[in-house]
Amino acid sequence: MTQQGISEQRVDPLARGVWGVVATPFTDAGEIDEASLARLVQFYESVGAAGLTVLGVFGEAAALTAAERMQVLGVVAEHSRLPIVAGITSLATAPAISEIENAQATVGDRLQAVMVQANSGSSAVVIEHLRRIHAATGAAVVLQDYPKSSGISISTDSLIAVVEASPFVSAVKAEAPPTAVAIARITASVEVSVFGGLGGQGLLDELAAGSAGAMTGFSFPEALVSCVSAWLAGDAEAARAELVPYLPLINFEQQPGIALALRKELFRRRGLFTSAAVRAPAVKFPNELDEIAADHLVELDAQEVR
Amino acid sequence: MTQQGISEQRVDPLARGVWGVVATPFTDAGEIDEASLARLVQFYESVGAAGLTVLGVFGEAAALTAAERMQVLGVVAEHSRLPIVAGITSLATAPAISEIENAQATVGDRLQAVMVQANSGSSAVVIEHLRRIHAATGAAVVLQDYPKSSGISISTDSLIAVVEASPFVSAVKAEAPPTAVAIARITASVEVSVFGGLGGQGLLDELAAGSAGAMTGFSFPEALVSCVSAWLAGDAEAARAELVPYLPLINFEQQPGIALALRKELFRRRGLFTSAAVRAPAVKFPNELDEIAADHLVELDAQEVR
Amino acid sequence: MTQQGISEQRVDPLARGVWGVVATPFTDAGEIDEASLARLVQFYESVGAAGLTVLGVFGEAAALTAAERMQVLGVVAEHSRLPIVAGITSLATAPAISEIENAQATVGDRLQAVMVQANSGSSAVVIEHLRRIHAATGAAVVLQDYPKSSGISISTDSLIAVVEASPFVSAVKAEAPPTAVAIARITASVEVSVFGGLGGQGLLDELAAGSAGAMTGFSFPEALVSCVSAWLAGDAEAARAELVPYLPLINFEQQPGIALALRKELFRRRGLFTSAAVRAPAVKFPNELDEIAADHLVELDAQEVR
Amino acid sequence: MTQQGISEQRVDPLARGVWGVVATPFTDAGEIDEASLARLVQFYESVGAAGLTVLGVFGEAAALTAAERMQVLGVVAEHSRLPIVAGITSLATAPAISEIENAQATVGDRLQAVMVQANSGSSAVVIEHLRRIHAATGAAVVLQDYPKSSGISISTDSLIAVVEASPFVSAVKAEAPPTAVAIARITASVEVSVFGGLGGQGLLDELAAGSAGAMTGFSFPEALVSCVSAWLAGDAEAARAELVPYLPLINFEQQPGIALALRKELFRRRGLFTSAAVRAPAVKFPNELDEIAADHLVELDAQEVR
Repeated sequence: MTQQGISEQRVDPLARGVWGVVATPFTDAGEIDEASLARLVQFYESVGAAGLTVLGVFGEAAALTAAERMQVLGVVAEHSRLPIVAGITSLATAPAISEIENAQATVGDRLQAVMVQANSGSSAVVIEHLRRIHAATGAAVVLQDYPKSSGISISTDSLIAVVEASPFVSAVKAEAPPTAVAIARITASVEVSVFGGLGGQGLLDELAAGSAGAMTGFSFPEALVSCVSAWLAGDAEAARAELVPYLPLINFEQQPGIALALRKELFRRRGLFTSAAVRAPAVKFPNELDEIAADHLVELDAQEVR
Repeated sequence: MTQQGISEQRVDPLARGVWGVVATPFTDAGEIDEASLARLVQFYESVGAAGLTVLGVFGEAAALTAAERMQVLGVVAEHSRLPIVAGITSLATAPAISEIENAQATVGDRLQAVMVQANSGSSAVVIEHLRRIHAATGAAVVLQDYPKSSGISISTDSLIAVVEASPFVSAVKAEAPPTAVAIARITASVEVSVFGGLGGQGLLDELAAGSAGAMTGFSFPEALVSCVSAWLAGDAEAARAELVPYLPLINFEQQPGIALALRKELFRRRGLFTSAAVRAPAVKFPNELDEIAADHLVELDAQEVR
Repeated sequence: MTQQGISEQRVDPLARGVWGVVATPFTDAGEIDEASLARLVQFYESVGAAGLTVLGVFGEAAALTAAERMQVLGVVAEHSRLPIVAGITSLATAPAISEIENAQATVGDRLQAVMVQANSGSSAVVIEHLRRIHAATGAAVVLQDYPKSSGISISTDSLIAVVEASPFVSAVKAEAPPTAVAIARITASVEVSVFGGLGGQGLLDELAAGSAGAMTGFSFPEALVSCVSAWLAGDAEAARAELVPYLPLINFEQQPGIALALRKELFRRRGLFTSAAVRAPAVKFPNELDEIAADHLVELDAQEVR
Repeated sequence: MTQQGISEQRVDPLARGVWGVVATPFTDAGEIDEASLARLVQFYESVGAAGLTVLGVFGEAAALTAAERMQVLGVVAEHSRLPIVAGITSLATAPAISEIENAQATVGDRLQAVMVQANSGSSAVVIEHLRRIHAATGAAVVLQDYPKSSGISISTDSLIAVVEASPFVSAVKAEAPPTAVAIARITASVEVSVFGGLGGQGLLDELAAGSAGAMTGFSFPEALVSCVSAWLAGDAEAARAELVPYLPLINFEQQPGIALALRKELFRRRGLFTSAAVRAPAVKFPNELDEIAADHLVELDAQEVR
């Protein structure tokens, strides 16, 4: 350990594969639905997810109280043995540290890393943010670049500079399109895992660019797992064949403005969630898409891909 | 004709099918490449496009001089017999009318309609804008809702109000996600054709929601044509089968920030364009994607879908 | 109280005058500086502020932990007798309620109201959000329309609909320009106090439009108090005369991107704060403005307005 | 002249003082009102403006046809002897060159410079854009950094790099807040005039930071002229005294969303314009502000500053 309490040596890269971004199920009354949450994480484990990312943007962490966040983490830890990455909502250092301490108190060494958003376009600001977070908590960090959620744009060069200066960063989640370009450049520069997200829309390109897999919450994670496994086994053809039948649904589910509601509705139709309820101001599932959602499921059944 | 010179009766809806959004090819020196443009529109005609949309956002109309816009329209009209929709760049009435007059002077009755962007969130403002445009030019109008390009957000209710008040509107181009919701609501309310765009990413859903087809510039328009034709013939299964193998490339091509460059590069690799040059400030094709683009083409060949 | 726990009768409008938006002072090491905070709130009381708005956007509430927010409220309550409005950071209902409960636990009936941001462009969503907040906490609400901070745009009509449906709303803070238009329309429709903010840049216009005063954190609150007091006493000339000499500094301080740093630096130079430190990712005071800031203070001294 | 047709030597900086940003008056029917335009430019000349900036954002250039732009320039040139800067609307090179050629054909050597917007955050892209513009037209360039209008953000460092590489740049118009910081940094680095805009809200700070004056369209330009003249004569006190009484109106007029309508209405009330008409989608003067606008004028009269 150096003077700053930060080891000079880079931590191990986060495990390759598919990290399930865990949606937080609610009852129709709006309370956390622990049974549905347990089903979801068990399902992720059963299909071969590498780990679970909890309390991310699509986990509606920003709509949960601190107590509810701990409740969610507790249920997740109890019902699966997968490693956990906890998403951190705050862009500021002190409340981010507080969130991490709560996560550590809840799941202990099950916490593989915390996912922290790039909170500035200036690499110096992000480096200091991460340095203080790590010094206070010792946590490994997944650095998330997700301008659509954070409102922050950072160049790929600056992102690389942050990773280079932060040996405790074990992964980058690259969600600023064009993601394949960013992934190619980051993986050419530093030894970290880089994951794509965005529902898997660009997964094949991201793998080709050098990504370590996907970290996303698509309602058929088994398809992502099959695709990434085939890719990691060296079979690009098979990877493509596994993913392509699901792309119509991936694109459907990833529609801006209603993606969360679609995903939850699909989990409901799959029997994993009891309700598709979201917390306001998130938008509800629009009835106009009722049949189209049904058609997608019928199609996947018909192709025996399900 | 009423006092305002506007007929009370709605014009015929724009023809169903795939309208090719024509990219404007440039030489490496940045001049309009007429030979490539001729090849492109002949190709669109050969694959069964319903018509051509020229001078849209992806036609880089905003980077062309008035003379160049007429040059492009002239080449398009000369080398295909397809009906033409001319995109109008300006959001203000007077210069929009001027653009339309130039288009009419160039291609005459080949001009099926002009595509005008919703220029306000207020239906009253858009209605007056279109009324004055139609009164001055007599042109039928395709109303485009493309907030990412125009910076204007308009509700679906307001969009419907505009169409209802404007009998000379023959189509709506719905590019504000979630597009399938908008398409379902518009087609349930008024008798116009509604087209999706966005590269075809949501084409199957949009057709299911009642769209008249696609109006977009994906580099393999034959796939969109096959899909839409199958759909219009009542065969949803076939429609899906035609589109799905192309979805990886559709998603690749539609990446925010570089979509235009990718599309042009793919046209170049297909032998339709001599150069993939774009006009600044549009972004060039990133070298990091060189192999990934090649892989997409190899894949399509391998599957004999090409 | 009705079944929903919501009285049908509107609460008293929030007191007219100047509500000081309390900046949270930090030490150079980044910790909450209680002594400076105590000085600031005592100063607000000494100059005749009507009340204190704590934990707002410019109170850097988003950069404070839950414990620190309570610490700030506690210091404020201890060192002044003014009524307190507590700003609520979260846009979602459950964590907003949690914040309010913490505030109530800390300052009890010193809490005059909580300031909640419009969290949707849909009045129905905001109404439900406020209804649940009030049902859970009983708190009176100041509804804040501040799109630059919240990212949410809501029409004035929708804002009025929210207030009409929510009798426990005692004030609106109107910070979506043009504010004078919104203030005129709201005050013509419902019996609530409406306050302008934005550093006081439009204070005279807002008063003329019917505002109840200012709720903002300008570094010379005594100028705002003198202005509003004169206005409420019916002397528009005097109100203008009190404010005008401060407008150069108001405009200086309100500059986008660095307004918080400027305000804190001016408090430091006035001897109220020990340090001008802000918490990242907020931007620091730029050295280039060192002399200009000094000039503003010299000017105000020279004019004996200080 | 070098090989590229660009002299290595920097052109003379644009003259210090106040450049009037000329609003384009319309009749109630929406046509260009030449008589009002003539009155306005004569007024600018009579109050001592250093020059006229025509066809800028607030000249509604984007709502004028090419023919109308030339008409406006022609009227301006005919009715004043002041040097002219012509605003260029397009962000792309070819149509920008076309606009410049039209301006040159209309006003010849009365054209002191053309005002071109930074069209990318990349200095290399802007440099090439300006290089090609200058090579094609020989025009001197005022580089405008106005992200609110262009949608483009460029760092001050990149802006300086552009000016250093472009000796034909005679001025920068700095309208990305905080402007005083940018002005201080640019004037410390390169020998160009730097002007503030934004209605004059930060004029005193901008002069203190080293600006060459103001380039804006505030409805009482004589106040800006008096202020800048006093400043350039070395009398900071007088500069302040000249500006301060107008700051309430400056802030009123500069309100986002309706600034253009306010400015035109004030010109109408001053007798310079016959109508306050704007071209859609610009927003009309809101009736709610009728009396407030009147009060501002009464105030200025009462203080004998008018």
